[in-house]
Amino acid sequence: DPYLKVLSLNSNRKLAEDIANHIGTTLGECTVSAFSDGEIQINIEESVRGCDVYVVQSTCSPVNTHIMELLIMIDALKRASARSINIVMPYYGYARQDRKARSREPITSKLMADLLETAGANRVITLDLHAPQIQGFFDVPIDHLQGVPILSDYFEAKNFEDVVVVSPDHGGVTRARKMADRLKAPIGIIDKRRPRPNVAEVMNIVGNIEGKTAILIDDIIDTAGTITLAANALVENGAKEVYACCTHPVLSGPAIDRINDSKIKELIITNSIPLPEEKQSDKIKTLSVAPLIGEAITRVHELKSVSILFD
Amino acid sequence: DPYLKVLSLNSNRKLAEDIANHIGTTLGECTVSAFSDGEIQINIEESVRGCDVYVVQSTCSPVNTHIMELLIMIDALKRASARSINIVMPYYGYARQDRKARSREPITSKLMADLLETAGANRVITLDLHAPQIQGFFDVPIDHLQGVPILSDYFEAKNFEDVVVVSPDHGGVTRARKMADRLKAPIGIIDKRRPRPNVAEVMNIVGNIEGKTAILIDDIIDTAGTITLAANALVENGAKEVYACCTHPVLSGPAIDRINDSKIKELIITNSIPLPEEKQSDKIKTLSVAPLIGEAITRVHELKSVSILFD
Ligand SMILES: Nc1ncnc2c1ncn2[C@@H]1O[C@H](COP(=O)(O)O)[C@@H](O)[C@H]1O
Ligand SMILES: Nc1ncnc2c1ncn2[C@@H]1O[C@H](COP(=O)(O)O)[C@@H](O)[C@H]1O
Repeated sequence: DPYLKVLSLNSNRKLAEDIANHIGTTLGECTVSAFSDGEIQINIEESVRGCDVYVVQSTCSPVNTHIMELLIMIDALKRASARSINIVMPYYGYARQDRKARSREPITSKLMADLLETAGANRVITLDLHAPQIQGFFDVPIDHLQGVPILSDYFEAKNFEDVVVVSPDHGGVTRARKMADRLKAPIGIIDKRRPRPNVAEVMNIVGNIEGKTAILIDDIIDTAGTITLAANALVENGAKEVYACCTHPVLSGPAIDRINDSKIKELIITNSIPLPEEKQSDKIKTLSVAPLIGEAITRVHELKSVSILFD
Repeated sequence: DPYLKVLSLNSNRKLAEDIANHIGTTLGECTVSAFSDGEIQINIEESVRGCDVYVVQSTCSPVNTHIMELLIMIDALKRASARSINIVMPYYGYARQDRKARSREPITSKLMADLLETAGANRVITLDLHAPQIQGFFDVPIDHLQGVPILSDYFEAKNFEDVVVVSPDHGGVTRARKMADRLKAPIGIIDKRRPRPNVAEVMNIVGNIEGKTAILIDDIIDTAGTITLAANALVENGAKEVYACCTHPVLSGPAIDRINDSKIKELIITNSIPLPEEKQSDKIKTLSVAPLIGEAITRVHELKSVSILFD
């Protein structure tokens, strides 16, 4: 279909190519560069008039530049008479700023939604939002894909004897439950508690992990503090081995050192955020979300439901 | 007035302090930092409920971070029940992307206006917009201050014998005319022309500069290519000496080297954009726009016209 165009910005060009490939097309021609003073310069090199355009951009680090690239591209597409502007955002930056946890905090995830719509986005396709409530921040349709099936398939193929899926905190239990359903395994929870103020946290493990292969699952691994402490606690408390997985490998600051130094046997991530050269590690294995997203784009473009992709 | 608050973001804290000083107040308490992954974290440390808040931020380099700081701050202020959110933006980034010069270009200056309003800005106070048309991109009131009086006063005090004010290109003639009026001087124009394609540009000088002190004036000096070529052409064609001035010292890439190597005797700039340590030069002299902006805020807050500031 000559009226379906996939464009890539700078955050995740390899994934965008893989997605285009999966759809059976190539990336549309555009250059996204910077003027001498650092202002973003975007040139769309082919007509998009009347086209349904899918712009691939994860708002990962450098997050503010990647957001501005996206907003400026949307502005350019709108003025170039694209028929629809569909944002493919495998990783949604600022998702953790999703509520006022304290007085006078911004709700930056809502701001992002407003900015995208103001620029002219007509639809958003995204993956494992940190909070599903973020869907409600949008007035345009949002297709919310899930990474759990991809991660689960990987572990299923390993045919572990005795598995338990563990959530590293209370907030992630629903996600752990979903994976456990697929693996027909029980769940566990790391129940961090501070007995008294100014006393170290206690890692209490809820559920039976003794002698089992434990799989820790989270949506985002950022500095990797939580997940590595959890992994070590599991091993100290009798787990046979610990795997960890997440959809979005933010992996900032000390993350890679912590993972390498931890009891985690293998960390499974997806390519929603690219893993740069300097963060590569023997322990880390990347699965691709390109087939999932490619299929989602095809189905959206053919006006078919994408919910079938989840089961 | 306890209901007037001036807050500073990270682009130009010194100027913000000087502005607050001029108004007779101090900066409101807030911290603008970054999480480990580079996402911006803003904490407003005092109540702004019912306040008229003036947020000082130039969207200079790193432009995308400075824009996002501003948008997130506006979001936080809106949710914290500020009565009005007034953006003090001495330098308006992306102002040069103000029209579609070619097909499929964005109009990023308009996008900026839309983003600011979407976030919740109620007013913008700015200085020497690259194109005055940008005022029309806003639906909220915009107070547009002028740098020419400040720059002119500096040169007036020098009591030059025989002065000509020169515009380095056709686009800046109106600005040169304004300064010439104040200095009671004639104007000149550098009339760059390319006689045939793929032939070097010719620097033709319109107006009499022989034996005179020439003052080159521009709104923005970015890579300083135009202004230094113009200065050298003026000296080669008989000007006695050449001064240059601008409101917004972007000074990116080779700018400082070019200025130091040029025939420019002195470059007068304002502090709309701070001049970092590594860009300081004996040739550069900075004038402060803090009194102008402080006065404008006071007048806006007292519901008085600011147009008196221009004459
Ligand atoms: N980029 C970030 N890095 C670390 N913490 C963040 C970030 N953005 C927001 N937060 C904080 O993380 C908390 C949300 O985490 P959660 O409870 O997992 O939803 C909020 O209190 C935020 O203040
Ligand atoms: N940050 C920038 N640095 C250099 N050139 C720019 C920048 N932003 C926009 N432009 C270009 O500068 C031209 C506008 O310059 P002017 O003719 O002086 O208004 C447009 O053609 C833009 O494409």
